[in-house]
Amino acid sequence: ADTAARAGATDRNGQLTKPPGALGRLEDLAIWYAGWAGDARPRIAAPQVLVFAGNHGVAARGVSAFPPEVTMQMVANFRAGGAAINQLSDFAGAQMQVHALDLDTPTADFTQGPAMTGAEVCAAFTTGWNAVDRNADLLVTGEMGIGNTTSAAAIVTALLGGDDWTGRGTGVDDAGLARKQAVIAAGLAANPKRSGLEVLAALGGREVAAMAGAIAGARALRIPVILDGFICCAAALCLQAEEAGALDHCVAGHLSAEGAHARMLEALGKQPLLSLGLRLGEGSGAALAIQVLKGALACHSGMATFAEAGVAAG
Amino acid sequence: ADTAARAGATDRNGQLTKPPGALGRLEDLAIWYAGWAGDARPRIAAPQVLVFAGNHGVAARGVSAFPPEVTMQMVANFRAGGAAINQLSDFAGAQMQVHALDLDTPTADFTQGPAMTGAEVCAAFTTGWNAVDRNADLLVTGEMGIGNTTSAAAIVTALLGGDDWTGRGTGVDDAGLARKQAVIAAGLAANPKRSGLEVLAALGGREVAAMAGAIAGARALRIPVILDGFICCAAALCLQAEEAGALDHCVAGHLSAEGAHARMLEALGKQPLLSLGLRLGEGSGAALAIQVLKGALACHSGMATFAEAGVAAG
Repeated sequence: ADTAARAGATDRNGQLTKPPGALGRLEDLAIWYAGWAGDARPRIAAPQVLVFAGNHGVAARGVSAFPPEVTMQMVANFRAGGAAINQLSDFAGAQMQVHALDLDTPTADFTQGPAMTGAEVCAAFTTGWNAVDRNADLLVTGEMGIGNTTSAAAIVTALLGGDDWTGRGTGVDDAGLARKQAVIAAGLAANPKRSGLEVLAALGGREVAAMAGAIAGARALRIPVILDGFICCAAALCLQAEEAGALDHCVAGHLSAEGAHARMLEALGKQPLLSLGLRLGEGSGAALAIQVLKGALACHSGMATFAEAGVAAG
Repeated sequence: ADTAARAGATDRNGQLTKPPGALGRLEDLAIWYAGWAGDARPRIAAPQVLVFAGNHGVAARGVSAFPPEVTMQMVANFRAGGAAINQLSDFAGAQMQVHALDLDTPTADFTQGPAMTGAEVCAAFTTGWNAVDRNADLLVTGEMGIGNTTSAAAIVTALLGGDDWTGRGTGVDDAGLARKQAVIAAGLAANPKRSGLEVLAALGGREVAAMAGAIAGARALRIPVILDGFICCAAALCLQAEEAGALDHCVAGHLSAEGAHARMLEALGKQPLLSLGLRLGEGSGAALAIQVLKGALACHSGMATFAEAGVAAG
């Protein structure tokens, strides 16, 4: 991040017509964004939402309340403008693109070995990296993939340990939850690798790898990122496992209702901007959180200083 | 609220292309708003932000980090467009009006008797009631008044009991906090009345009474309200103390960092939409929360149904 812009933003924040700290996290957010934008008084004009879709071999094991065909059906819904993420992207003034990643070829069933080959994970990661618009000033990554909360929980279990990272995803019953737990245990046994990118290949999916690629690509372009829920954070965790600080350009958009997302955010060292019980994926929570960041910058960049307004500074 | 519109919205919510409940509180919000709007598929097109300002006799007792002149200076800042609420109202596409209520005549010092006469509190309440635009489709009420966290804490103490409702307001030190507590204790001793409107007159301020009037006026027009922080909620509490259900047309916009706001929301039976550590007043937290409600309605009213999109419903 740009230390001069950050210092300039911190200085400006102290002069605005409000008691010190009275805008709470909005102040921290504005200063954080200013540092990455390289501008002490920035606005968000060109947010980008990227939605990646992939199919999972483990979906055949009954880990979801929906059949795998729904991945392709929802991609059609994204393209027709009918999904939640379409409404929230439009509302945020964001451009949105959908990348369907080899939906006819699900990843391999990770209970039997790695979900993806090295070539497959690299292709997906690169698709994500290249999808980032270098003129965007903010990025949200979302996903769609029946079975991908199982993949995400497997990634987190591999990287953080413990055995209680599963949740009900789109809404499985107790038997479905037990199947998820068994599938994850089998996946870990079949895939003993432990580096971030190894785990991404072994237990992830193409859409998860693409999200990781987009988040890393945004970092190379110094574009700030708002992370979405459980699956997006699992992708992000793979990057952080490779390199501390890899997510300094990211904030957590929301706390999902999915299983152990709160503990995952703790592991990432991120506090969510919103906590509204969302568990939809698609980037929906992060897209809504764009409004919070925009509001923070509207205040930071638009308010008068004590001197400009002739207000006593207390 | 309109039960047919509410039922229509509930039915529509169940058909949208998402797992049941996956949009969390956004779903409840959309259905609540639909009921008050009398439209099963509504949008927010004309939000209104009302900012009321008043001066307080108790400000002379050293209960604030800022001198009372700042009330008038901030009114000028609101009128010039330089305050946080101006930026957040513009961002929400809201009309905003500022009502400065007899700033040259502070309320009486409530440690010596009632802050306002019956005529004074009625005049302020009526100003608030009449300020609501009957064509608005959402209302936010905010305030400015040096000393008014002391007034608000006194109201809450009178209505809810206990003695730990004070906070640091704009940022008083320990000695200032002790003065607030002593002023509130003296105010309660000098004003033994206990109905909601009696307490509003005895311990409130003109801007607090105007907020109560605007919230009640919005109810008469069936206009939904987003409540702001500690002071706005103290005004709302006076209405609820008079009549259970008086705030059914209101949601809590945010959890303020001011003192005991969390316990106050509990007493109101409201869960906040945002929790970002704001403690500015002006209606700022509620104005930012307009974005959450707009996002909820963008999804509810814009999404495709399973049938429209040809997606399997699980």
